[in-house]
Amino acid sequence: MVKFEELKKKIPTQITVLGGGSWATALVKILCENNVKIKWWIRRKSDVDFIRKYNHNPSYLTDVVINPRKVKTYHKMSDALNGTEYIILAIPAAFIPSTLKDLHAKHFEGKKIVSAIKGMIPDENILVTDWMEKAFNLPLGNSCVIAGPCHAEEIALEKQSYLTIASPKVETAQSFANLLNSRFLQAHAIGDLYGVEYCAVIKNIIAIACGITRGLGFGDNFQAVLVSNAMQEIKVFLDKVYPATERDLNSSGYLGDLLVTAYSQFSRNRTFGNMLGKGYSVKSAQMEMNMIAEGYYAVKSIYLISKSHDLNLPIIDAVYNIVYGKANPKEEMGRLKGHLK
Amino acid sequence: MVKFEELKKKIPTQITVLGGGSWATALVKILCENNVKIKWWIRRKSDVDFIRKYNHNPSYLTDVVINPRKVKTYHKMSDALNGTEYIILAIPAAFIPSTLKDLHAKHFEGKKIVSAIKGMIPDENILVTDWMEKAFNLPLGNSCVIAGPCHAEEIALEKQSYLTIASPKVETAQSFANLLNSRFLQAHAIGDLYGVEYCAVIKNIIAIACGITRGLGFGDNFQAVLVSNAMQEIKVFLDKVYPATERDLNSSGYLGDLLVTAYSQFSRNRTFGNMLGKGYSVKSAQMEMNMIAEGYYAVKSIYLISKSHDLNLPIIDAVYNIVYGKANPKEEMGRLKGHLK
Repeated sequence: MVKFEELKKKIPTQITVLGGGSWATALVKILCENNVKIKWWIRRKSDVDFIRKYNHNPSYLTDVVINPRKVKTYHKMSDALNGTEYIILAIPAAFIPSTLKDLHAKHFEGKKIVSAIKGMIPDENILVTDWMEKAFNLPLGNSCVIAGPCHAEEIALEKQSYLTIASPKVETAQSFANLLNSRFLQAHAIGDLYGVEYCAVIKNIIAIACGITRGLGFGDNFQAVLVSNAMQEIKVFLDKVYPATERDLNSSGYLGDLLVTAYSQFSRNRTFGNMLGKGYSVKSAQMEMNMIAEGYYAVKSIYLISKSHDLNLPIIDAVYNIVYGKANPKEEMGRLKGHLK
Repeated sequence: MVKFEELKKKIPTQITVLGGGSWATALVKILCENNVKIKWWIRRKSDVDFIRKYNHNPSYLTDVVINPRKVKTYHKMSDALNGTEYIILAIPAAFIPSTLKDLHAKHFEGKKIVSAIKGMIPDENILVTDWMEKAFNLPLGNSCVIAGPCHAEEIALEKQSYLTIASPKVETAQSFANLLNSRFLQAHAIGDLYGVEYCAVIKNIIAIACGITRGLGFGDNFQAVLVSNAMQEIKVFLDKVYPATERDLNSSGYLGDLLVTAYSQFSRNRTFGNMLGKGYSVKSAQMEMNMIAEGYYAVKSIYLISKSHDLNLPIIDAVYNIVYGKANPKEEMGRLKGHLK
């Protein structure tokens, strides 16, 4: 019996990672600390070829060594899905439907789906795990989401970090958390899948708000009040849209995740907001950044959901009005000032 | 009747400010936006003379103009206490007993006491408002505390800020809050005097912890987790030591105050911690800084109070062990790592 258990421990866990960005690269690095085999799908053929040849991602976290004994890169998605136990989604939410359009329920059968995405599916205004469940008929207990304060750049530097893995079936979350624990990372499991996922989505909107106010010249005092009020808005939203009795919003999967984004100079969402605060139009900020911040889509979805529940969320409203309603950032934030305390 | 009310509005509120540091100077500036007369006591005679001559504090927030029609400076404390309605304490907690040693209950009779201090009275391990109440036989409903995220430096720059005024008698807090409201500041009143005051004290300890971990090379990911866990420790402490049903720890008087200190490069407490993390001894850090951070005293008091209630607060314990127990910061934070999640 002991021998069998020992043997089982030695069999590497088979994992698929979909997406070639910085967070995907960080997750590959984290997982390689443990006994795993990774099939890594990356959209761009040239990146796949580069990694095969040089064992580095040419575009993101270029310092991270990709261990070829543990990681195989793929350009054809179905090849990367074969025979694995976990599928990690690390693709911007807006591209999920188009990227997975050729897949079917059978590709996911019996597998655990881990979303590393902090965004909503645009137009449908639903969470990624929710969309996946509907699109591929997944049992929700097989889904988890990765949350927690974690800059990919600090993973590359092996700075001590923590992640929260959430699944309605805590054992699913725990089994994945076990694969992440290593000398520089601690992961723990909780049961609040949607709560953590919504919080992760909303924090990107708050990061846009922080960026806008910074761009307008507001200081640290204001930002501390903005983030405190944001926590209250998150509570109002979750208590209405997805109530749960055992949720501690001050744990690192919620508050921590918000803090690392709101106070980061590197957050794309904050940078996007900063440009709006400095007078860029939404279009020109996006063109200049050459990428789209998740919060851009998220604020529309969260705004519509909040209105369908008759919620009054002044920060969300202000960001929505600026990003979609062409409101003047200075006037809008001037109005918001009076709602905070 | 209307006429009397109109007349009453025109009579300036008489306020004493005790202390000549940056926070005292910022409060004088804020109050001068409203209809007040301020008697400002400053310990150093040369500073009093300088302000009288040049209308600037020579040592702190030197850009702030002190309006001589509204502010009179005093070197003799009893002169500054005569005929005023509010007495604002803005002296480091450790110096309160010695600075006020010549005062008697009659000096405070019928006056409202506003503590702008975020520290504990050393050796006695009690809050400043608590000590004042005992020393001068004050009715507690006449005491308030000023909390909320507020760098004095940003007040000097007239950056939009918010303050929370707490008193067990909310009307007392509200009447003082009304004196603070202005074009760049919003103040609001709550009833949780001790809760806000304890939180303000503990946040200085957390800022030391943030500084230590920064000094040791930990990054943003870790700090976000540290601050989230700190909020949980504050909750455990307050729920035990001073429980209250209507306390929202995510409002700006609690969380906001913690954030502005923990994320500030300018916090003395954080700077002190940073030096400990970089290998300075407590003594040499204090000598190099040429001042003592409030958190240095606070951590001893809060540690002793928490132990008297059998509380396990890993962050407080770690800072205490480093500051008073000569524990090695790297080993102590290495141990703390395992307690966070």
